[in-house]
Amino acid sequence: MSTATREIYFVKRPVGMVGVDSFRIESSRLSDLSQGDVLVQIRYLSVDPYMRGRMNDNRSYVAPFALNTVMTGGAVGQVIQSRDPAIHEGDWVFGQLPWADYALVQGDGLKVLDSHLPPTTALHVLGLTGLTAYFGLLSVGAAKSGDTVVVSGAAGAVGSVVGQIAKINGCHVIGIAGSDDKLRMLLDDYGFDGAINYKYQNVAATLGQITKGVDVYFDNVGGPISDAVISHINDFGRIAICGQIALYNNVAPDLAPRIILPLLLTRRATAQGFIVSDYSRDFKLALSQLGHWYSEGRLKIREDIVQGLEYAPQAFLRLFEGANLGKQLVYLP
Amino acid sequence: MSTATREIYFVKRPVGMVGVDSFRIESSRLSDLSQGDVLVQIRYLSVDPYMRGRMNDNRSYVAPFALNTVMTGGAVGQVIQSRDPAIHEGDWVFGQLPWADYALVQGDGLKVLDSHLPPTTALHVLGLTGLTAYFGLLSVGAAKSGDTVVVSGAAGAVGSVVGQIAKINGCHVIGIAGSDDKLRMLLDDYGFDGAINYKYQNVAATLGQITKGVDVYFDNVGGPISDAVISHINDFGRIAICGQIALYNNVAPDLAPRIILPLLLTRRATAQGFIVSDYSRDFKLALSQLGHWYSEGRLKIREDIVQGLEYAPQAFLRLFEGANLGKQLVYLP
Repeated sequence: MSTATREIYFVKRPVGMVGVDSFRIESSRLSDLSQGDVLVQIRYLSVDPYMRGRMNDNRSYVAPFALNTVMTGGAVGQVIQSRDPAIHEGDWVFGQLPWADYALVQGDGLKVLDSHLPPTTALHVLGLTGLTAYFGLLSVGAAKSGDTVVVSGAAGAVGSVVGQIAKINGCHVIGIAGSDDKLRMLLDDYGFDGAINYKYQNVAATLGQITKGVDVYFDNVGGPISDAVISHINDFGRIAICGQIALYNNVAPDLAPRIILPLLLTRRATAQGFIVSDYSRDFKLALSQLGHWYSEGRLKIREDIVQGLEYAPQAFLRLFEGANLGKQLVYLP
Repeated sequence: MSTATREIYFVKRPVGMVGVDSFRIESSRLSDLSQGDVLVQIRYLSVDPYMRGRMNDNRSYVAPFALNTVMTGGAVGQVIQSRDPAIHEGDWVFGQLPWADYALVQGDGLKVLDSHLPPTTALHVLGLTGLTAYFGLLSVGAAKSGDTVVVSGAAGAVGSVVGQIAKINGCHVIGIAGSDDKLRMLLDDYGFDGAINYKYQNVAATLGQITKGVDVYFDNVGGPISDAVISHINDFGRIAICGQIALYNNVAPDLAPRIILPLLLTRRATAQGFIVSDYSRDFKLALSQLGHWYSEGRLKIREDIVQGLEYAPQAFLRLFEGANLGKQLVYLP
């Protein structure tokens, strides 16, 4: 008997700020399983800033979403039925899955999760979030003990892991975020050394007061916050460009003082964009290290959970409002 | 008997475009030689864009010039009298020397030049110009055979050496310059594969037509030309930031679309500022390689010579007018 499901379609490319009108929920029925197929009940969806880029029809490092197709992204769920011999009913699995109640997928696209770990960790500390933080900070940023590390979007999923890995590696860590609740979380829960609320503090002036310059800047946001941090980059400093969320909803680039290249020149600094998949050959080693830190309680992440598939678009929009406190997930009860 | 000389003083920090009023020529007499001293008759002065940065009282990688002191820079001259046993009357020497007819300096600050080579080569292909091109292109830019290399300020001293080294290494080389005479020099004398006159050609559109994207951008100029080139940077492209001459005479940074960090991100590209002295441990090896290419006739540079110490300021200003065709020197007859 075929399974009834609901699916969220991407139906309109946003111009400027993305809204719920870019999405539509529809009902459908999944076909029966063929050999190698797995039927998954999806339980947690990850919503991530990079998805906004895929909604534009632009050249980027991930292909654009096609219009009038089902949204996809990282998700975890439970196996209801399996015709893949390596995957069993009841297993928790991770995969690139549709925004839907159920998905019929090939087993070889799924990763069976360790039953000793909370399944949502595959969507953050022990998944692409953790890997992005790990390689961005340690490989691109080349952070080392004693460095001053500044993270923007520090209370977001990647940012909060970056700060914790930097602390584990003996760095002095400053986070930038947009609410006092977030600052408290950085300082009290994640052990950051300092935090700046960019909504009412002058980022450049504050960095001048509380640091001796910035050795590594892990950039999740771009825009004026990045200009302020880069104005304090030290000689031979490294800028790991992970995201530019401040700009994703712009129709056209805004105007700003032309300071980036001159600052890189006079400080002999390096700015490098990256995507975590470029480091995939080292994922296994990194996940083992991340898992070790997690089991020791040195790496944690707060989850911000919206309930109900039909609210996945709203959960996604929360990222651009800065409304999420911790990793934004959607729970499908 | 003490030697009469003229010296050019730096007397006023420029605000905006530098002018001759920042300099004053004065007469003086040099004292007699003590043990270790050398009296040099200066014959060629090098004027270079980086000197404009030293005229501001700003943080940069070289200390600012002090007001009301004699201008200094790279220069070559002939030894008139020596109390350093390693340096002899008649030797040609290179050093950081005053803008003056004669200089009394310690011998250990001088480098005696190979008498088989034209002494001015120490001011360009076989000096800091050549080394800057060499390390910027090969170490920072990591240029390799088959890469498309774009050079801005291509007809300047560094730019023209960059293009030739890139050709020697099997790259496809496009130069950007501001006059058709310069373009002809790039194509006919230096063997560039293509050249763009930014004064009447659209740099971005032309690069789109004549390249499959840019693997290495060697940036001497900054500003809108760099924005245009970087908009064509390829995945994993490298930007070696050597100079920003377009901006040196600005009172404040101008406004430009905020595109640099987003482009670095989506192309996973790297931008790095550098100064040649960071590579000093490898100078000897690089100079031997440059000397080899020079002796084979594969590395050449046109000299643009202004005559007379009193015209050194004007020679310097020519750099910012784009008036020089080749390496700008001042000859002291």
